[in-house]
Amino acid sequence: MVTKNELKRLRSLQQKKFRQEYRMFVVEGTKSVLELLESGWEVEGLYATAAWMEAHTDLNLPDLQIVSEKECEMASGLQTPPGIMACARFREPDGTDFQERLPDKLLLLDGIRDCGNLGTIIRTADWFGFTHIICSEDTAEIYNPKTIQASMGSFTRVRLHYTKLPEFISRLPEAYRIYGTFMEGQDLRGTEFPQHAAVVIGNEAHGISPEVEQMVTDRLSIVRVADHPVDSLNAAVATAILCFALSR
Amino acid sequence: MVTKNELKRLRSLQQKKFRQEYRMFVVEGTKSVLELLESGWEVEGLYATAAWMEAHTDLNLPDLQIVSEKECEMASGLQTPPGIMACARFREPDGTDFQERLPDKLLLLDGIRDCGNLGTIIRTADWFGFTHIICSEDTAEIYNPKTIQASMGSFTRVRLHYTKLPEFISRLPEAYRIYGTFMEGQDLRGTEFPQHAAVVIGNEAHGISPEVEQMVTDRLSIVRVADHPVDSLNAAVATAILCFALSR
Repeated sequence: MVTKNELKRLRSLQQKKFRQEYRMFVVEGTKSVLELLESGWEVEGLYATAAWMEAHTDLNLPDLQIVSEKECEMASGLQTPPGIMACARFREPDGTDFQERLPDKLLLLDGIRDCGNLGTIIRTADWFGFTHIICSEDTAEIYNPKTIQASMGSFTRVRLHYTKLPEFISRLPEAYRIYGTFMEGQDLRGTEFPQHAAVVIGNEAHGISPEVEQMVTDRLSIVRVADHPVDSLNAAVATAILCFALSR
Repeated sequence: MVTKNELKRLRSLQQKKFRQEYRMFVVEGTKSVLELLESGWEVEGLYATAAWMEAHTDLNLPDLQIVSEKECEMASGLQTPPGIMACARFREPDGTDFQERLPDKLLLLDGIRDCGNLGTIIRTADWFGFTHIICSEDTAEIYNPKTIQASMGSFTRVRLHYTKLPEFISRLPEAYRIYGTFMEGQDLRGTEFPQHAAVVIGNEAHGISPEVEQMVTDRLSIVRVADHPVDSLNAAVATAILCFALSR
């Protein structure tokens, strides 16, 4: 049986304060929980309703605890709880210096604030083979339930590094070109990328920060086709187009 | 002064039932409301808090009614109301047959269910010069506040047509190729598009419906770079990549 305290702790993980305190987070939904279990991530607890279990008799999950619909609703952060949730431990830095084993293509997030955008960016990055994302310290939190939800399990495969972005860029080997998108940049459609490329994605409202902009070596533009002004593209959408262009 | 009834009606427009009944919808936020006013759309009411007006003394909006913070919270659908909202009338079909004045490039939505995705798709379509989107009847509602929010004002410029998709496609002139994305399709990166192209975007979970799939003439694929399985791309992300590829 699940204790009241355990349910309370689960529920508290909807708040950053408690995630930070317990170094744990919540994953909800069949697909995301299955990917979590497959990933070898450290799972602290696994909870499902009887209805979910009946609908998934083909799955044999270890140490699954049954919760009532009411308990599930209490613990869940979703309006319509999917009936399955896991509590997992943070993946702590492994002590090695990531800068010493850099992939050829890098994604750099400079202040992405919306968790849904961050989750979608993680999912897209995963599809396009990015195994690491470098995030400025003011980028949204990977363990926010909305990020986890939108990443659709990809958070288990793409590793996020929160760090001071200008410092990170300044330490990159010279072979790396640093790309950013701006209104007046070079047309992305004709751009060929070198082997070593780092792409910076700016904040939803303010774009790339002045400090990072100074370090951009190649200014690109996702050219607007419409002949009337359109404010901008959504940040996750712009990231996807850049990832696709980089994959050519 | 704004009456209790007016506030109640505003609040009720968060629900589809009442939007349908009144043929009205709500727009919130400075940017979206300004674009609404610029678009010449029929606006029924315009409401702002004193705080919003103080912060925007440079804007001279017509027939603006002041609401208290409390009234604004009551009427708003957002957790953090931006302090400015408009009530607008549906844009009703103008009676002309859209099929007789088709643009060269068409976007067809086959059962997009998430309002956030739909709004983002509208915003992206606007950027890439699509003036019309054809939606299956089970596609999410353009006037849902979440759609309006995510479209960032682009709903004023891109026209949505809800119709029976297979029927619409069957009536398209022969010059149009019909594109859809599938796991085993032709690599999008090498695809050249003809002058007349219609791109179908499938449902978030189930993809393109069997009936529409039969009518697809060219099967494309947004090739996954990762060498491990990744479930799929977000529907709005896939749409953006297709729109970008079409713009080459």
